Amino acid sequence: MPYKPPVRDYAFLLRDVLELERYANLPAFADAAMDTVDQILEEAGRFTGEVLAPLNSVGDKEGCHWAADFTVTTPKGFKDAYAQLVAGGWPALGADPAYGGQGLPHVVNLAFSEMSSAANMAFSMYPGLTHGAYSAILAGGSPAQKDLYLPKLASFQWGGTMNLTEPHCGTDLGLLRTKAVPQGDGSYKISGQKIWISGGEQDLTENIVHLVLARIEGAPQGTRGISLFIVPKFIPDKDGNPGERNAVKCLGLEEKMGIHGNATCVIAHDEATGWLIGEENRGLSIMFVMMNEARLGVGMQGIAQAEAAYQAAAEFAKDRLQGRSLTGPKNPDGPADPIIVHPDVRRMLMDAKAIVEGGRAFLFWTALHGDLAHASPDEAVRQKGADYMALMTPVLKGFLTDRGFQVCSDAMQVHGGSGFTEHFPVSQYLRDCRIALIYEGTNGVQALDLVGRKLAADGGRGVMSFFAELDAFIEANAADATLKPFTEGLARGKAELQEATMWLMQNGLANPDNAGAASTDYMHLFGLVGLAYMWSLMAKAAQAKIAGGSTDPIYAEKLTVGRYYIARVLPETTGHLVKLKTGAETLMALPADSF
Amino acid sequence: MPYKPPVRDYAFLLRDVLELERYANLPAFADAAMDTVDQILEEAGRFTGEVLAPLNSVGDKEGCHWAADFTVTTPKGFKDAYAQLVAGGWPALGADPAYGGQGLPHVVNLAFSEMSSAANMAFSMYPGLTHGAYSAILAGGSPAQKDLYLPKLASFQWGGTMNLTEPHCGTDLGLLRTKAVPQGDGSYKISGQKIWISGGEQDLTENIVHLVLARIEGAPQGTRGISLFIVPKFIPDKDGNPGERNAVKCLGLEEKMGIHGNATCVIAHDEATGWLIGEENRGLSIMFVMMNEARLGVGMQGIAQAEAAYQAAAEFAKDRLQGRSLTGPKNPDGPADPIIVHPDVRRMLMDAKAIVEGGRAFLFWTALHGDLAHASPDEAVRQKGADYMALMTPVLKGFLTDRGFQVCSDAMQVHGGSGFTEHFPVSQYLRDCRIALIYEGTNGVQALDLVGRKLAADGGRGVMSFFAELDAFIEANAADATLKPFTEGLARGKAELQEATMWLMQNGLANPDNAGAASTDYMHLFGLVGLAYMWSLMAKAAQAKIAGGSTDPIYAEKLTVGRYYIARVLPETTGHLVKLKTGAETLMALPADSF
Repeated sequence: MPYKPPVRDYAFLLRDVLELERYANLPAFADAAMDTVDQILEEAGRFTGEVLAPLNSVGDKEGCHWAADFTVTTPKGFKDAYAQLVAGGWPALGADPAYGGQGLPHVVNLAFSEMSSAANMAFSMYPGLTHGAYSAILAGGSPAQKDLYLPKLASFQWGGTMNLTEPHCGTDLGLLRTKAVPQGDGSYKISGQKIWISGGEQDLTENIVHLVLARIEGAPQGTRGISLFIVPKFIPDKDGNPGERNAVKCLGLEEKMGIHGNATCVIAHDEATGWLIGEENRGLSIMFVMMNEARLGVGMQGIAQAEAAYQAAAEFAKDRLQGRSLTGPKNPDGPADPIIVHPDVRRMLMDAKAIVEGGRAFLFWTALHGDLAHASPDEAVRQKGADYMALMTPVLKGFLTDRGFQVCSDAMQVHGGSGFTEHFPVSQYLRDCRIALIYEGTNGVQALDLVGRKLAADGGRGVMSFFAELDAFIEANAADATLKPFTEGLARGKAELQEATMWLMQNGLANPDNAGAASTDYMHLFGLVGLAYMWSLMAKAAQAKIAGGSTDPIYAEKLTVGRYYIARVLPETTGHLVKLKTGAETLMALPADSF
Repeated sequence: MPYKPPVRDYAFLLRDVLELERYANLPAFADAAMDTVDQILEEAGRFTGEVLAPLNSVGDKEGCHWAADFTVTTPKGFKDAYAQLVAGGWPALGADPAYGGQGLPHVVNLAFSEMSSAANMAFSMYPGLTHGAYSAILAGGSPAQKDLYLPKLASFQWGGTMNLTEPHCGTDLGLLRTKAVPQGDGSYKISGQKIWISGGEQDLTENIVHLVLARIEGAPQGTRGISLFIVPKFIPDKDGNPGERNAVKCLGLEEKMGIHGNATCVIAHDEATGWLIGEENRGLSIMFVMMNEARLGVGMQGIAQAEAAYQAAAEFAKDRLQGRSLTGPKNPDGPADPIIVHPDVRRMLMDAKAIVEGGRAFLFWTALHGDLAHASPDEAVRQKGADYMALMTPVLKGFLTDRGFQVCSDAMQVHGGSGFTEHFPVSQYLRDCRIALIYEGTNGVQALDLVGRKLAADGGRGVMSFFAELDAFIEANAADATLKPFTEGLARGKAELQEATMWLMQNGLANPDNAGAASTDYMHLFGLVGLAYMWSLMAKAAQAKIAGGSTDPIYAEKLTVGRYYIARVLPETTGHLVKLKTGAETLMALPADSF
């Protein structure tokens, strides 16, 4: 049961819901006429479905191999697939035309990324991190650095990595010890050990560009003394080709629960030669440019694995004959009914559709705001786009990966015992998906970023703008009978989210532990209301198509799944609100040594 | 960080909450004076902690080995540990004195089972299934069968298995095809393939007793034509020792996401010799005796893995230094604070304690009712005991494994990236735990058993008796200020559970899909209220000890964790109630081919 890229759903979102063609006058969108986008996504569906997906299980079962000469071999088939990825020009989709890219809107590239991730998450992390390194150099590099590195990274000819974590520091980067000693010629000698470096060594690319956080000798302790360096595996020669081998090597690979096809490396820098990106001691701010982009991408990974797991579960549920419907046989000529007749199996499949399709809409809607933050000529649109990107990123990362993992687990449950065996693909989806709740900042860190930074930023401008947008939608559509479940559900959810926001503003300052104690429940409450709005937008778009005479079944389906979301997922908001309003007291009451 | 058996918690439950000594006049309890029980559990803690726990990771990494001569080798060390298990007399704890057992109450044996499972789930399944086979023969075997097999099974000298599933049938056993042909001498020739047979072949015991569901030639189709057979690997000779090799063999092992140390076998019966247990075509009813016992045991497995995962997470959270408390440094002399200072880390650890300790209480409380169902001289107590056992079993299995898995996932989250690596134990706990949501009837099957059978049994006698017990507790303790959060929370939860029960009674008959659509939410609502009652009982017991002058910190801790449960876990009831009352309509609206 191979993964089938949901290209029809992308077209629905881009064409009917986000109405991409409205922006055809903007630079990035000019080359993204919907017919072109449709063609790109169809072709991307073929590439990811036919080239990447068949290697997913291979990568999981074989894993990566480390050898005593510090080389790493990726699973059988990965090298060839990577060559096809590069040859097909796929890297160019999201890259700047100045460096060989097509410069399409991110929202279009996001569809390609989702398909790649769903087809083969471990594989797609190699180009994913490369794109991250590209973004960091684009954001903070000198003109010479950009000219030297960006074309190679934009084409995926070279790989890229993020070297942040050390054995004693992950979330708290202020503790990091890797040191950089200036050589007087503009270069530095970098020394230290980094762990959990995805794609830190591999056999896919002729060079690897490590972006390394390190502390310049004499720099302040803590986060204000951290700088960012480019440390290439092979130092580019005067023609920009891979030259001298640098003193950076992979000491071993991590054994992990999933993403076995991606090499998670221990990387030793032993007086490796590196070059500073941006200013001294300002490395974290550039790294966070890359990190924020990566966080939206991780939210996408949660949805991507959930989509793939859902597809496997739906197919199983339609094929597997077991028991009879409670309301009488639905397959009377067969020995039993397909298990999709059972309401509790439906519940898991409907939850999956509601979360995956709603979550995808939330990702695309936010990514479009991100595009508009750069491309719009209207200052207010740019500001709102940037506000929404900042506000929604932790929600997308935390909420969608938590729920995506739950969808994967439900998809396993639909399979019964078969799901627990490695003959079926769902165990891998579940195991691979699990990392998305952890990396690029754990979901708890996302929740704290949301309540501690993003909510209050610019006097709460982003969240107030979002509330106003919800109110406007509710008011504009209150009289519409078809949309009534949506406007009513959204109004209830929004009232609870607003109450929670007020509670946080009043109690988070009084005792910061109240904000911490409320953070995860608040993030989920926000995510649930966000998806209610997405389903409302999708319902409105679908209803308009039906009113316009379309008989494409997708529109009626969207209304049905949306009503399910409002009735059977959204009511979880109340529990989150009640919980978070209890504050930190019962949470922090137990002495630490009682654990 | 080895698993530490929670023997102090067992003593609290058995001594202070369940007050086991009240039952000292009853047969099974006479030999279970609390001092004796304490000693047994201390010793059990040593055995499971020192012998079984160190082999847990070994079993996971090495797995079982199948050879072309159809033999299976268990992981290194399992054989020796099994010999120690048998030599230590541990099997006798829960077995009938007539067959060499000690005949202690099940509630005591349950503590031993939990420790075994937490220490090494894959290992503990070998004796676990053996005990299941013992129970089935005890329930349905002839006197001769009991004399021949029970002493060998009670001592774990022989292993036991359940042969139910076939490739085309799991939940729906009515479809099974394995056939049995009478030989005219009281024996049958059994032929067919069985899958997912835990411990179906192994090198731990000198013989294996397979209990096999098969259809006697000419028997009716469906579940009314299924009989249960004993098929020993080696046919006992006239002295009862393993004799001729039977035609039953293991064709291979399943690759699975977890429990690698347990051999999950494909078993072929090729005219194997078997003997009928009980009457023809009545096999399922005997199998269900065994299955019900097993289901409570699976609920226990969910809690056991959660306990082990929680312990690992708590230790990690106290050791790992990362970031500073939001309310100022708590470890000012160190480079950072331990992550347990962060409210969101606390949230996950407190959730874990609330679910594990509350779930354990629910298991023990129900098991005690099961003991009383047999041992009490009072007919009303016996009936209530049997009613509660029947009613609570699906809740314990479904709710506690769902929540136990969530605790394991949260424990991984506390570990951050470390948790995703196989250097730490938590990935194994998560992977091993996942099967508990599936086997012995998926959690969806449990939910349907609850709403479809158990609720309505005997005119709803069990659930009404439970509601009356809750009301009595609330009324008796309403004036107690310390218990106020508990009585108020319990009253709210009980009102919602009662409303849901009424809704089911009114709407489940009108449309059976309403019952199916409500089932999982109802099961969770029931479980949440059940745990609220358990925390209320524990709070009352703890408060009494404190009032009596005890300064043992466990009592204040129980009150604190209990208050957390009421404030921050119980409020999930509302979401379940609102969801289930929406009925089947939105759930079943999408055509099957739209999935």
